[in-house]
Amino acid sequence: MKGVCEIRERIRYADTDQMGVVHHAKYLEYFEIGRTEFMRRLGMPYSEVEKRGIFLAIIEAYVKYHKSAKYDNTIVIQTGLKEAGRVKVRLDYKVCYEDGSVLAEGYTVLAPVNREGKVVRLPDWLRRIFEEAR
Amino acid sequence: MKGVCEIRERIRYADTDQMGVVHHAKYLEYFEIGRTEFMRRLGMPYSEVEKRGIFLAIIEAYVKYHKSAKYDNTIVIQTGLKEAGRVKVRLDYKVCYEDGSVLAEGYTVLAPVNREGKVVRLPDWLRRIFEEAR
Amino acid sequence: MKGVCEIRERIRYADTDQMGVVHHAKYLEYFEIGRTEFMRRLGMPYSEVEKRGIFLAIIEAYVKYHKSAKYDNTIVIQTGLKEAGRVKVRLDYKVCYEDGSVLAEGYTVLAPVNREGKVVRLPDWLRRIFEEAR
Amino acid sequence: MKGVCEIRERIRYADTDQMGVVHHAKYLEYFEIGRTEFMRRLGMPYSEVEKRGIFLAIIEAYVKYHKSAKYDNTIVIQTGLKEAGRVKVRLDYKVCYEDGSVLAEGYTVLAPVNREGKVVRLPDWLRRIFEEAR
Repeated sequence: MKGVCEIRERIRYADTDQMGVVHHAKYLEYFEIGRTEFMRRLGMPYSEVEKRGIFLAIIEAYVKYHKSAKYDNTIVIQTGLKEAGRVKVRLDYKVCYEDGSVLAEGYTVLAPVNREGKVVRLPDWLRRIFEEAR
Repeated sequence: MKGVCEIRERIRYADTDQMGVVHHAKYLEYFEIGRTEFMRRLGMPYSEVEKRGIFLAIIEAYVKYHKSAKYDNTIVIQTGLKEAGRVKVRLDYKVCYEDGSVLAEGYTVLAPVNREGKVVRLPDWLRRIFEEAR
Repeated sequence: MKGVCEIRERIRYADTDQMGVVHHAKYLEYFEIGRTEFMRRLGMPYSEVEKRGIFLAIIEAYVKYHKSAKYDNTIVIQTGLKEAGRVKVRLDYKVCYEDGSVLAEGYTVLAPVNREGKVVRLPDWLRRIFEEAR
Repeated sequence: MKGVCEIRERIRYADTDQMGVVHHAKYLEYFEIGRTEFMRRLGMPYSEVEKRGIFLAIIEAYVKYHKSAKYDNTIVIQTGLKEAGRVKVRLDYKVCYEDGSVLAEGYTVLAPVNREGKVVRLPDWLRRIFEEAR
């Protein structure tokens, strides 16, 4: 993982389910929060990427759950680059408690698509941004 | 309420929270399911409204909660037109169990906006659609 | 409004919908984030309230939407106490941009319920907490 | 995959994001809808499993996305059993359009936990239920 960045987030009540813990689908939202921060640190906020007509669509997602998080807990989301190829980018994530104990980890594979939703090659300006992650 | 229509929906597990019942924000999603069905019955699916460049943005929402719904319960969402004016439309909703006992009721006020998010007058073709609700 | 507190939050991508802005139901989650912070500032985190066997169930919710918020925007959630009675508590909210322009405002009415979901009187220890809001 | 069952679902507006399609995290909710139906068909609704004190916690989840789904589309969720072992159960899913074209596929691995959230062995009564899937 290159360019690992961290961001803190508090668990919303609405993120829990009747098991009394965070619903498992929410971790994909936490990964997304991490991804947003990761792009911002590289100097290219994802909102800017979309303004330029490129959308990073998720084509694969994987999560391994270790512990369950609870309402109002503070979590730390770590995000790093695994690889940025011509038509896909893989980011890895770790969601932890502040003491470092791991709640979940996983990855997402993203493909650049244009406004029409068609897969395109990763534009040079965006590839260079990812290459700066180290 | 005019043109009242009904649609059944099952409570998703993800709709619950740690209180063991449906999270209160989800009722706005249930109202939305009702609204979607209401438009379809009028012969103008909301997806078609958006294709024509009109978006019905929520400008006000109210919910009164009577009973709590649970995972896997079947609910009945009733939707009807309260009024359709020049720049706003009000729809009323009732969410019930199949035996008719009321879980929640409320309303949303919608304003027609264009692709740029600017409020516009309700187009004639859409006003006529709402007038058919009786 | 008494005891008004503020908390900042960033809009998650998952909070948006195809209109390109925050889905209206998410404001109830933002109010909830405000409520969580409000209780914490009073020295009684809501998670602690639930541990003591009291759940504050929403019995009424209202939102008036002024402007739409977008992905990655920073919002400020203001929460204050309107009134705390024997069987209900009303909190008021304002969601703003950092420059103070209002995105949405509204309120929720909460009723204390016990573990079985039955409405109870607001316990003295909790009533006193709310009275400290000024 | 054994005991494959199908259930239809309509895409909620709230399930979309600003890309104009269903947010990727929602597929885990669709898998969950499929899982709920799968258990019901086996004669053991998941709500009943929880009443008996067993919770099937997700310990792993994977999704591969092929096409994007849109608001108000009808999707078909197929769910089948891959394997039910002593401490984990794997279910496989396919989310399709009604014409059979695949939107996404994936799996979840579930572990039986008790009310305290501790992993336990799959109880015999539940193992037998899964064995009936064929």
